[in-house]
Amino acid sequence: MLTPASIIPQFRTAISMPSIRDVAAFAGVSIKTVSRVVNNAPNVSRDLRDRVAAAIKALDYRPNQAARRLAGGRSFLIAFLYNNPAPGYGGGIQAGAANRCRELGYHLVVEPISLSGEERFEVLDRLVAALRPDGVFLTPPLSDDVQILRRLSELNLPCARIAGSVMSPSFNIPTPERSAGRMVADHLIGLGHRRIGVICPPVSHRAAQRRVDGFRDGLTAARIAMDEQMFVEGAFDFASGISGGEALLGLPHPPTAIFATNDDMALGVLTLAHRRGLRLPDDLSVVGFDDTPGSLTTWPPLTTVRQPLDAMGRAVVDALVEGLADAPSFRFELVKRDSSGPAPGR
Amino acid sequence: MLTPASIIPQFRTAISMPSIRDVAAFAGVSIKTVSRVVNNAPNVSRDLRDRVAAAIKALDYRPNQAARRLAGGRSFLIAFLYNNPAPGYGGGIQAGAANRCRELGYHLVVEPISLSGEERFEVLDRLVAALRPDGVFLTPPLSDDVQILRRLSELNLPCARIAGSVMSPSFNIPTPERSAGRMVADHLIGLGHRRIGVICPPVSHRAAQRRVDGFRDGLTAARIAMDEQMFVEGAFDFASGISGGEALLGLPHPPTAIFATNDDMALGVLTLAHRRGLRLPDDLSVVGFDDTPGSLTTWPPLTTVRQPLDAMGRAVVDALVEGLADAPSFRFELVKRDSSGPAPGR
Repeated sequence: MLTPASIIPQFRTAISMPSIRDVAAFAGVSIKTVSRVVNNAPNVSRDLRDRVAAAIKALDYRPNQAARRLAGGRSFLIAFLYNNPAPGYGGGIQAGAANRCRELGYHLVVEPISLSGEERFEVLDRLVAALRPDGVFLTPPLSDDVQILRRLSELNLPCARIAGSVMSPSFNIPTPERSAGRMVADHLIGLGHRRIGVICPPVSHRAAQRRVDGFRDGLTAARIAMDEQMFVEGAFDFASGISGGEALLGLPHPPTAIFATNDDMALGVLTLAHRRGLRLPDDLSVVGFDDTPGSLTTWPPLTTVRQPLDAMGRAVVDALVEGLADAPSFRFELVKRDSSGPAPGR
Repeated sequence: MLTPASIIPQFRTAISMPSIRDVAAFAGVSIKTVSRVVNNAPNVSRDLRDRVAAAIKALDYRPNQAARRLAGGRSFLIAFLYNNPAPGYGGGIQAGAANRCRELGYHLVVEPISLSGEERFEVLDRLVAALRPDGVFLTPPLSDDVQILRRLSELNLPCARIAGSVMSPSFNIPTPERSAGRMVADHLIGLGHRRIGVICPPVSHRAAQRRVDGFRDGLTAARIAMDEQMFVEGAFDFASGISGGEALLGLPHPPTAIFATNDDMALGVLTLAHRRGLRLPDDLSVVGFDDTPGSLTTWPPLTTVRQPLDAMGRAVVDALVEGLADAPSFRFELVKRDSSGPAPGR
């Protein structure tokens, strides 16, 4: 049976819900003060805050975000758009972002976005229509997805990217990929390696490609001839670490070291080496990139490049909440563990 | 300079925004039909859906979630509350939940919740006040956190738990922990092991404690005397796998196999074994629990119990969106890999 309340849903809530006016009267303060407390505005005295909080509790008042949005307020939502096969990377960024959101009174929405198809724009439009987030941030490869960036711009959404590479007016946290690739080359060359295989990032990860450029810089500086057979493409996942490693170790003159340009692929190389009975690092040195949790729990522990993922996740939230100031710069750092050692015969 | 629009923010949007009425007129359908399309209601014909979509696009209409909320509508938000030291477990649940949300037109908010302190209730209250999610789900140990469950109930939030153990009226997806623990015991006993160490879950993870009960069932069934020294407590993280393994391998009569009750701890045992030069599984068998990605990328690949994390994440979203029907039952499965083998001397 249809009742007025079921036809016109407004009736359901309109009757008994206390208003901000009730809270102000109960607390003996102005409506504006209640609003300031509810919105976590700065410079509200502890006493006023306590009185308003007590009134809110006594009346079971729920400051209605919906009403605040209609009034042009903030949504206190930040959205994280991602598509990355490496769970350790995204998980590290998300942990930092979620904790920073909590500290700031914000909330984090996570939104997996496919790399192609019309559906991904519908997801985005629906996100904006339904939630009107105060900002959105993206990690590679979405950071360089010009179609997604354009749509975000059309939707007038504040947007921040991590490791963006294409030109875009949106905020970007640059990452020192090239110098980090150089660090890996210098490390392995310093250990006496001359034949070093590289499992490169997928082409969609443009910033990460610079790791290979930096690695080549190191070869050039050490006057080591470039052998293009030593560069194979990976997909940033465990399986492509195994297949990339197979391709490299199957060469007539196989490498004595492999630089896998992310940790997930490096774990694949380690597994392949174990399967073949190679001693690590005596027979083969392996270096990864990211310093994800898996790099520490594998055997041997992985030499890798530490990206400060937690701090990067925090920074991108700060940038969105506080209005897109200058990007902080982050340092990457080589973490030497036991998967890399002197070249055989040295 | 203050203008009316800057003082009264409503004015900013009230002027040019097309209404649902405009969309209905443009598409030549009823307002109710537009609402049904916008809300992804079932049983709307493809033709009507297309006409409404075209009108929405032509007018750049954005169905305003804020207005829909004021009208008592849904928020299309599901919140995931978590506090678990094992990133692989939470990541698997989240991936399933996020993808299911996307399919249903919902969005997933992730909210790390601390295990103690008043602050965690503030986080929860703020979440509800700001976003009014349509439902909330929790994973262990929050699934058994009676204070959090009580607060969620006071807030009238539909709540679903994964592997809840304490009595609570809220929806719960039960997990066959005890029978899975029994499977591990039967597997290792079948391989000839008689001295088996167990690194137990932390006490806060009540459902997971049943893994140990099931393991003890297996010992009893095989008439193997219970040696309480063989049971040590862990913290569900890598470090406690190492320290727990050290305690067990340091016994006068050390075990020939170790059952670590989650994968993160099992990876710690593997690392400890490698450090000590033990051959795996010849000198020591190791079994984990969860089948997280790390169990496959370690060496040797880990024998573990597969929890269908993706399906469990999907199910909990389905339960919340479709109104908390009967809980589905999930099967856990022993995945035999190379970290377990015949007992030494067999």
